[in-house]
Amino acid sequence: MNIVRVSLEHHRSYPIYIGSDVLSRTGEFFRKHSLPAQTVVITDRNVAERYLPVVKKSLEEKGFSVYSIILPSGEKQKSLSVCNTIYTRLLQQRITRTSVVVALGGGVIGDLAGFIAATYQRGIDFVQIPTSLLSQVDSSVGGKVGVNHPLAKNMIGAFYQPKFVIADSSALRTLPQREIICGLGEVVKYGIIMNKDFFNFVEENLSQAVNGNTDIFSSFVEESCTMKAFIVSKDEKENGLRAILNFGHTIGHALEQAGKYRVLKHGEAVLLGMAAEAFISRQLGLLNDNSFNQIFNVIKSIPLPSLKKLPLHSTTLLDTMRKDKKSTAVSIRMVLAKKIGKTTLPFPVQEDVIRESIKFLQKNF
Amino acid sequence: MNIVRVSLEHHRSYPIYIGSDVLSRTGEFFRKHSLPAQTVVITDRNVAERYLPVVKKSLEEKGFSVYSIILPSGEKQKSLSVCNTIYTRLLQQRITRTSVVVALGGGVIGDLAGFIAATYQRGIDFVQIPTSLLSQVDSSVGGKVGVNHPLAKNMIGAFYQPKFVIADSSALRTLPQREIICGLGEVVKYGIIMNKDFFNFVEENLSQAVNGNTDIFSSFVEESCTMKAFIVSKDEKENGLRAILNFGHTIGHALEQAGKYRVLKHGEAVLLGMAAEAFISRQLGLLNDNSFNQIFNVIKSIPLPSLKKLPLHSTTLLDTMRKDKKSTAVSIRMVLAKKIGKTTLPFPVQEDVIRESIKFLQKNF
Repeated sequence: MNIVRVSLEHHRSYPIYIGSDVLSRTGEFFRKHSLPAQTVVITDRNVAERYLPVVKKSLEEKGFSVYSIILPSGEKQKSLSVCNTIYTRLLQQRITRTSVVVALGGGVIGDLAGFIAATYQRGIDFVQIPTSLLSQVDSSVGGKVGVNHPLAKNMIGAFYQPKFVIADSSALRTLPQREIICGLGEVVKYGIIMNKDFFNFVEENLSQAVNGNTDIFSSFVEESCTMKAFIVSKDEKENGLRAILNFGHTIGHALEQAGKYRVLKHGEAVLLGMAAEAFISRQLGLLNDNSFNQIFNVIKSIPLPSLKKLPLHSTTLLDTMRKDKKSTAVSIRMVLAKKIGKTTLPFPVQEDVIRESIKFLQKNF
Repeated sequence: MNIVRVSLEHHRSYPIYIGSDVLSRTGEFFRKHSLPAQTVVITDRNVAERYLPVVKKSLEEKGFSVYSIILPSGEKQKSLSVCNTIYTRLLQQRITRTSVVVALGGGVIGDLAGFIAATYQRGIDFVQIPTSLLSQVDSSVGGKVGVNHPLAKNMIGAFYQPKFVIADSSALRTLPQREIICGLGEVVKYGIIMNKDFFNFVEENLSQAVNGNTDIFSSFVEESCTMKAFIVSKDEKENGLRAILNFGHTIGHALEQAGKYRVLKHGEAVLLGMAAEAFISRQLGLLNDNSFNQIFNVIKSIPLPSLKKLPLHSTTLLDTMRKDKKSTAVSIRMVLAKKIGKTTLPFPVQEDVIRESIKFLQKNF
């Protein structure tokens, strides 16, 4: 087992326990952190079937009582009305402030359960057990929790840190390929924004990972969490540096929304968004041709849905980007790549260059 | 104008500007604190009619743009579904993270608008302008924000601090007597839990205050905020000392709920709760007869609804207290008075003594 520490001010630092079969040690970690005896495990049906028994057994063996809330799978659960149903169950169950919410599942469960923990009785303890590659490398570090609003994703939420995170690589063995690819999107991103050596390492091992050889995942998770932890510890509330994590996301979000979140998954949209934003970086003279080609080829080698399935109207996409919370009302800003391993902070980009990048995507994906 | 400073760690300290006609200086305070140019004023119809024009004018004169959300009055607005309506309006209006929510109104507006500020796009700036005595002396200090759940009040929320608070005593001139009494409930509480001299001062000026002589309110507000600020700065998240603010609230909440929040207002219920909890303090030998009588007489001199209007079944009341989030699942705990100016921390109390205190209330109110 390896431990990555997320360093935050004000007694909010926490460890991420990474390794194979660490799930079965859940109760031990709860003891170590002196968490309350009452736990509420929030999970979804797919994950519950596979991993709830081992987590429950481990907690109960160490004297913790477990109340489980098992939701249907899917992004639809990330809503205020599902929160309301959960609050009702917690109150009916007489769950007090001296309890701990455990998020057992992917990003949807993590965001939703985290928001419940942040808001139930003004905030109770929270533990994250991410079971997808995407949530292990991304959403389990940084404390962003929340739900969607019908008009836009992630608009209702908070910054709320867990007591610790358990990232078990054996839980990734059963992931479908599209889920793996979504996680790899963020893994590739860490290479581009922060670390050329890691980018090369990912490049070398990418085809094996895409094809389900999960041996490499523990080191992907450990390196990605280390980088994200570094960024978050410098800028917890996204006032500066943390914005570089949005590389690929401005255009990515717009693509995701163009397909109404049904055509592209988040990680797929981010991969395409990174291709477009790398293209823009080159057009603006920030990124040289070699680096651009290296990024493009890595993304191109990953199986992605065809963009022909999407309505790609530049004007609509630009409108979505303007509404994106990462932009101010006036101009569209995005993080751009200066080389592999280094980006700008958010940077205003002219609309004609963005239109060009969308044509580039249309031609290539 | 006087300034009370709430000292918190981690750059979250803030001032309360207290005085007559400080509302007209709103824009000036926004400038001083370098707040964003876009403001969202959340208020209710009654308050909007009286005070929105002066706040709006002051903000606009200093270059701030104002988007107002005017809600119906009443506790019903403090719900997740009203939040959802507000999120929709903010998104439609393209309100970004670089905006500030202003709560202009009583406790309901403060709690609701504060929760919106805490959760819209993971938290945006927040300013409180309380316009009732209760919200000026109580809910504007301490950062508790949130909404009600149909099963229990204040169950969904967060700790979220404002950038500053404006407490204008001239806004209290138009308050109905019952509203004044509600504020006085908390004012009397500060005397009992922390400061004998202040208790005596309140006792001397009480009948004038009850009868609408508002000259005294600025000093009531200033002293109360100073005491609450002291407590909150020692214990922001209610892990210890802050619990003493709940004196009168364990039984008070149960009474409030017994009348389905229609018979008793919060401050009235707290006054009755304090009488009962002072009685328990005496029964347990913590409080002497003289001090008990002094507390009882002060409360008795304030016009309160008759308890004959309430279904006072001890068993139901005890059940409510057990569900109260301030109690653990096992026993009912409450803060008790040791003398005027000093309390215990939460203390397990036997049910028979609580039953006795309810009989005492029935006999006297």
